[in-house]
Amino acid sequence: MTAFNRTALEEVLKKRFFYAPSFQAYGGVAGLYDYGPPGCALQANIIDLWRKHFVLEEEMLEMDGSIMTPAEVLKTSGHVDKFTDWMVKDLKIGEIFRADHLVEAVLETRLDGDKQARKAEAEGSVQPEKNKKEKKKGKIQTAVKLEDSVKADYEEILAKIDNYSGIELGAIIRKHGIKNPETGNDLSDPVEFNLMFESNIGPTGHLKGYLRPETAQGQFLNFKRFLEFNNDKMPFASASIGRSFRNEISPRSGLLRVREFVMAEIEHYVDPNNKDHPRFNEIKDLKLRFLPRVIQDEGKTEPIEITVDEAKIVDNQTLGYFLARIQLFLTKLGIKSDRLRFRQHMLNEMAHYACDCWDAEIQSSYGWIECVGCADRSAYDLTVHSNRTKEKLIVRESLAEPIVYEKTVLEINKKVFGPKLRQHAKSVEEYLTSLNEEQLEALKKSLQDGNGGTKVPGKDGNQYEITNEYLSINRQTFTEHVREYTPNVIEPSFGIGRILYSLIEHVYWTREDDEQRAVLSFPPRVAPFKCLLVPLSNNPAFTDLVADLSKRLRMLSIAIKVDDSSNSIGRRYARNDELGTPFAVTIDFQSVNDGTVTLRERDTTKQIRENVDTILQVLKDLVEENVTWEKVMELYPTFVTQQLE
Amino acid sequence: MTAFNRTALEEVLKKRFFYAPSFQAYGGVAGLYDYGPPGCALQANIIDLWRKHFVLEEEMLEMDGSIMTPAEVLKTSGHVDKFTDWMVKDLKIGEIFRADHLVEAVLETRLDGDKQARKAEAEGSVQPEKNKKEKKKGKIQTAVKLEDSVKADYEEILAKIDNYSGIELGAIIRKHGIKNPETGNDLSDPVEFNLMFESNIGPTGHLKGYLRPETAQGQFLNFKRFLEFNNDKMPFASASIGRSFRNEISPRSGLLRVREFVMAEIEHYVDPNNKDHPRFNEIKDLKLRFLPRVIQDEGKTEPIEITVDEAKIVDNQTLGYFLARIQLFLTKLGIKSDRLRFRQHMLNEMAHYACDCWDAEIQSSYGWIECVGCADRSAYDLTVHSNRTKEKLIVRESLAEPIVYEKTVLEINKKVFGPKLRQHAKSVEEYLTSLNEEQLEALKKSLQDGNGGTKVPGKDGNQYEITNEYLSINRQTFTEHVREYTPNVIEPSFGIGRILYSLIEHVYWTREDDEQRAVLSFPPRVAPFKCLLVPLSNNPAFTDLVADLSKRLRMLSIAIKVDDSSNSIGRRYARNDELGTPFAVTIDFQSVNDGTVTLRERDTTKQIRENVDTILQVLKDLVEENVTWEKVMELYPTFVTQQLE
Repeated sequence: MTAFNRTALEEVLKKRFFYAPSFQAYGGVAGLYDYGPPGCALQANIIDLWRKHFVLEEEMLEMDGSIMTPAEVLKTSGHVDKFTDWMVKDLKIGEIFRADHLVEAVLETRLDGDKQARKAEAEGSVQPEKNKKEKKKGKIQTAVKLEDSVKADYEEILAKIDNYSGIELGAIIRKHGIKNPETGNDLSDPVEFNLMFESNIGPTGHLKGYLRPETAQGQFLNFKRFLEFNNDKMPFASASIGRSFRNEISPRSGLLRVREFVMAEIEHYVDPNNKDHPRFNEIKDLKLRFLPRVIQDEGKTEPIEITVDEAKIVDNQTLGYFLARIQLFLTKLGIKSDRLRFRQHMLNEMAHYACDCWDAEIQSSYGWIECVGCADRSAYDLTVHSNRTKEKLIVRESLAEPIVYEKTVLEINKKVFGPKLRQHAKSVEEYLTSLNEEQLEALKKSLQDGNGGTKVPGKDGNQYEITNEYLSINRQTFTEHVREYTPNVIEPSFGIGRILYSLIEHVYWTREDDEQRAVLSFPPRVAPFKCLLVPLSNNPAFTDLVADLSKRLRMLSIAIKVDDSSNSIGRRYARNDELGTPFAVTIDFQSVNDGTVTLRERDTTKQIRENVDTILQVLKDLVEENVTWEKVMELYPTFVTQQLE
Repeated sequence: MTAFNRTALEEVLKKRFFYAPSFQAYGGVAGLYDYGPPGCALQANIIDLWRKHFVLEEEMLEMDGSIMTPAEVLKTSGHVDKFTDWMVKDLKIGEIFRADHLVEAVLETRLDGDKQARKAEAEGSVQPEKNKKEKKKGKIQTAVKLEDSVKADYEEILAKIDNYSGIELGAIIRKHGIKNPETGNDLSDPVEFNLMFESNIGPTGHLKGYLRPETAQGQFLNFKRFLEFNNDKMPFASASIGRSFRNEISPRSGLLRVREFVMAEIEHYVDPNNKDHPRFNEIKDLKLRFLPRVIQDEGKTEPIEITVDEAKIVDNQTLGYFLARIQLFLTKLGIKSDRLRFRQHMLNEMAHYACDCWDAEIQSSYGWIECVGCADRSAYDLTVHSNRTKEKLIVRESLAEPIVYEKTVLEINKKVFGPKLRQHAKSVEEYLTSLNEEQLEALKKSLQDGNGGTKVPGKDGNQYEITNEYLSINRQTFTEHVREYTPNVIEPSFGIGRILYSLIEHVYWTREDDEQRAVLSFPPRVAPFKCLLVPLSNNPAFTDLVADLSKRLRMLSIAIKVDDSSNSIGRRYARNDELGTPFAVTIDFQSVNDGTVTLRERDTTKQIRENVDTILQVLKDLVEENVTWEKVMELYPTFVTQQLE
């Protein structure tokens, strides 16, 4: 097989309208794409499989929520303050860059130049420090050798590029003389830019809204309704599939970093005291390729392939269960398992509230890209919304056996306390009620030691005399029949567009005999179209058969594409190889005579020839993945040549 | 059956979380709703059926485009200038109203008051003009009799309420003393308010964007790609399902007028010279309930029930074909055909470019509501985008027989023309090339009459002498092999939320024996959950059977809901009647012994009892609507009483 050629693939995707930049006739907008018929069908099939694999399989409670979100909700969630990137501006022409991406690009270019210069030097052919003028203008970075210490410095910066603050990025820009590579102009200090699209809701101009950056918040806010819908049973999961938005400073990498994208998110609610999963057993023998924190700490990137149980590094069963289910889902789609890994977040990468977080990363020509995040978000989200809105987002669990416990408690004798302390009563009471059990025991002791009297500070800082008459401090027994707790949330979050693009790279290849002949080997279940229906030529003898057969295929809910254009049959097959259509039914002159048609499989280009009824049944089984093509080839004789006249 | 009670239905929908106001813990936002599990599944099933009925059935080219749209695109389409409503402001407290809705509400209240007053007067019990003070404050409009002329005036205004300009609405408000009904304060003049949500794309603040108000524009802009994808064959259709936005001034009527909604739109491209539809025959015998313009002009609202062909009022076959297909789709969902009508737009209702437009209106407790619009938009959209962007959005049709025609043409003899006329040559040439055929013939004649010479004006206004040597004017024969045309667009546009809500009203009823027992009789195909799986009690004897059966049901891709709560079996059935779940499989003690289970149907509450394999097969056939419950009842004996111990 030839080496992967992204340009060639992109040419195919454009030609077959998998996707294209939106509003291109108007100059287009970076980071906005339209999915054409095959891309749209592929996306719908991925979503359909996701729904079956996750929602139906585990009776998740799917919802479909609003995109437009009031600012207050996203203030509480932290997005208004923290969902930001750093940008810098060309001080002369005003062009704006994402600071970390610009630093990365400039330093990578310089390191490339250094590599060339060292190579040339070793070959004894080039003087270092040439092209001074171009370097100054910053336009093209050619072979310039760097000091060893500078080189090491650059490499360290690149390794840490995701984690710098704005101030640090500004210092790097100044220290290493980073300019706008196009103009050579100086750059501003990094400024924070919020990545949410902002708008106003309604006509007043006073209700600010943002387009949601994720579907999660809408799910959290419905927690009470979900719990009730689930008959108050725990654990359970909600799920949502929908568009989210991210106003990137400068989008890049095609479908991998866009301003509008489809997400599929699960919020699985668990008891913080028991994060076991009832179906953990079903996945316990599945091996995953883990890249845990400890390996990354050693600067290594080689994953270990073991089961969740063996790994002993995934924080809990539920998190581990989902990692395994994610792998099953992705490989079912056609993602190659040797190009999939689960990378644990480094401690400084995780949100402060997260217990543990793993990214399913898929390898493509853009490197290892996070396509699914899977985090244990603890009780963070439900807690912040609950605190802000005063709506209790908790679970009340009836205890089979009540919990009995003892506790030291303070009782104030109001009849004495108020009249004696008068205007100071409130201040002293505030102090006393702020004491914990240990402090209460100490106070009790000092009352005993002082023969029933002692001094305590009020909240005002003054000291006040109190006696045993004012209050009592005793051990009491309590019985609780209901336990209240805020559930923890395990969140698997899928970027559908990233998965879709990665999948396309994984299933793309060209025929050995002809590099021009591209094939996309989607599994039948996710292929945009399942079957090409093709008459040998546009001879009118075929018209009725095509109409009849296309009707029967539609009745079976098989997505077909009829190609009765005047192109040669080979050309039409090739076109559908590029669309990833797994099967083709061909109607030829023999069909008109004996009612048989041929069925061609995309990857092998092998065919069988049977009567229409048989072919339809075989096709339905193939499309539903009840039978493989290998099996079909065993059952039916291979058909060799089409009668062309 | 009891009369429809919207409050009772809304109670059920809330309790079962079909949908709920978004962000309610934060006070909610008018016009934004979240669909809970049953609403979300119902929506997904409606969309799935739509895709099968339209996209798969006619190999439409489905796309999924961007929501965020650059302002320029929507400037061209006309939305920036014309997608507006009129608003008025309370001059003291600043409250904002949609002007036409406010006028409507106030006049309706006054007419109600008049009706009461007239009734009371007839009964001789009440003095007119009472409650003067309240009337002035405008808070409550009670029984106040109106002058006959005023009453007639109000009625005329209400009949025309959809078509007033801002100036007219302002005049009505002043003439009839319309105030804020809550405060009695004066209102501002009507001001235009654009209904699109506005935002900025990227960090510069210079690229204005709007959230799309429809999916159509994204489809038009991809016309060239679609045509190529379709091998340049005409006619064909593109389609898109997705969220659109409308920043309503004051949303109302639940799901019927919201700020965010799912649309499904088809753009069917046809040759303007031939709007016949190849599959028209398939629908030609279907009767539709038409409410044509002529009937409305007579002030009548009784539709006529005839076929598209008989109607002879639908502009063309393709438009008629889609009206019929829309009816087939809606009735398949469960919309009652006697509460569905096709209303033709009045001439002043249609956009200036539209040829004809019909709304599929569904009757609910809110009246007759437009749920699907079906318009012939002529070549308008493709033309305006093409003019603006200079990208040709046309079809080039190879003509089987070339078109041959004669034309009078001018040929300038450059060798003489330039040298003779020198600096005036350009001015004269401009004049000459602006002449049409008739004018050229006239010029030829005057050259003949002048013995080969005449005077012509230049573009500069001066007269110049020319002769036969300067030019020749002749009839020539032309042959054209390709015809170029801008396709016309027939656009069926579906409001999925409106259809969903109307459907719920149509399938809602309460059991005769108990008004509290609500049922939603969704057809199996669209029902949110297909089957309730319910053990008789939470006896551990049932656990394995429930697990096994739920696994087998999932394998059949049947969406189930397991209810093993401790509620009585009757209560659990009732709960699922409210969810519209058509079938229930019950596991009882007999099941444990003999492997049989019961299958209950929602509407009849009748049951059969068979072994698990049979029940699963029957269930699958029922869910896929391959068999009706009536048929099942013929084939299997009715099962009467469950063994409760």
